[in-house]
Amino acid sequence: MPNSDSQFAAAAIVSWKRVISQIDKGLAGWSDADLQSEVAPGRNRLYYLLGHLTAVHDHMLSLLRLGDRLYPNLDEQFIRQADRTFLGPQPSPSDLRKAWTDVHARLTPALERLSPAELLERHSAISEEDFVKEPHRNRLTVLLGRTTHAAMHEGQMRLVRPSK
Amino acid sequence: MPNSDSQFAAAAIVSWKRVISQIDKGLAGWSDADLQSEVAPGRNRLYYLLGHLTAVHDHMLSLLRLGDRLYPNLDEQFIRQADRTFLGPQPSPSDLRKAWTDVHARLTPALERLSPAELLERHSAISEEDFVKEPHRNRLTVLLGRTTHAAMHEGQMRLVRPSK
Repeated sequence: MPNSDSQFAAAAIVSWKRVISQIDKGLAGWSDADLQSEVAPGRNRLYYLLGHLTAVHDHMLSLLRLGDRLYPNLDEQFIRQADRTFLGPQPSPSDLRKAWTDVHARLTPALERLSPAELLERHSAISEEDFVKEPHRNRLTVLLGRTTHAAMHEGQMRLVRPSK
Repeated sequence: MPNSDSQFAAAAIVSWKRVISQIDKGLAGWSDADLQSEVAPGRNRLYYLLGHLTAVHDHMLSLLRLGDRLYPNLDEQFIRQADRTFLGPQPSPSDLRKAWTDVHARLTPALERLSPAELLERHSAISEEDFVKEPHRNRLTVLLGRTTHAAMHEGQMRLVRPSK
């Protein structure tokens, strides 16, 4: 019987992996042309949400102190700006698919390697001094927050049916 | 400094409460007429998703062994059947709003009263014998799963802008 800490940690990681694999399943069904579909009239395209989640998750690498970011170049188009407003050169759908895959191939195993105690360590956006007063600002709460954020967007993405 | 078990448990509850309060915020903005809006053309109405989440969360009371269900009558229309297919008498929007409020007024405090060890106890859909072999089938994993399920639908619901 695993100890309770490791049960809690494992459950958080399983929840994360479920949401990511649901998005992977969607991506396997949508063609590159489908990625241009809006999730609802006038709302974000799949293309944008894919870039948005990739950028947000890439940022988790540094925020959770798991290594250097792979795609900081996505932030301007997919975090700071809204869909269809960015005027610079844009990644192709296949570039974005590759970025999505690369980020999760790096991030998820790094999360799995954290011990329960390491999951409760501070994230990089809080100082050691402040963390003493606010111990909930740890990797775990970032992970849970990003999991529900991804689930929220996955719910929107699944509104687009594959054209095949 | 709280011990690590209670930090994990608290983080799971906070994540649940954030998603529920996000839906509460939506409900405060949508009129009863807005609840008839579909989240995307041909997809579920807000009315249906509100009933669906209320029924699923009401079921958590019994599944997590926290007490008797309050609204088992919602299951047929909002879990077993798809939107617009149920032919029996239907709750009004204000009935559904009340049910949503009642269920969470009962459920969330009951979740908060569970100790970390109690969160890792089995849920009611698994026998004590099977739980020995599958200790991950506990209240916590149900809670995390329902949290991402609610977040997924909340992402769809937020596509409907309040008419006011």
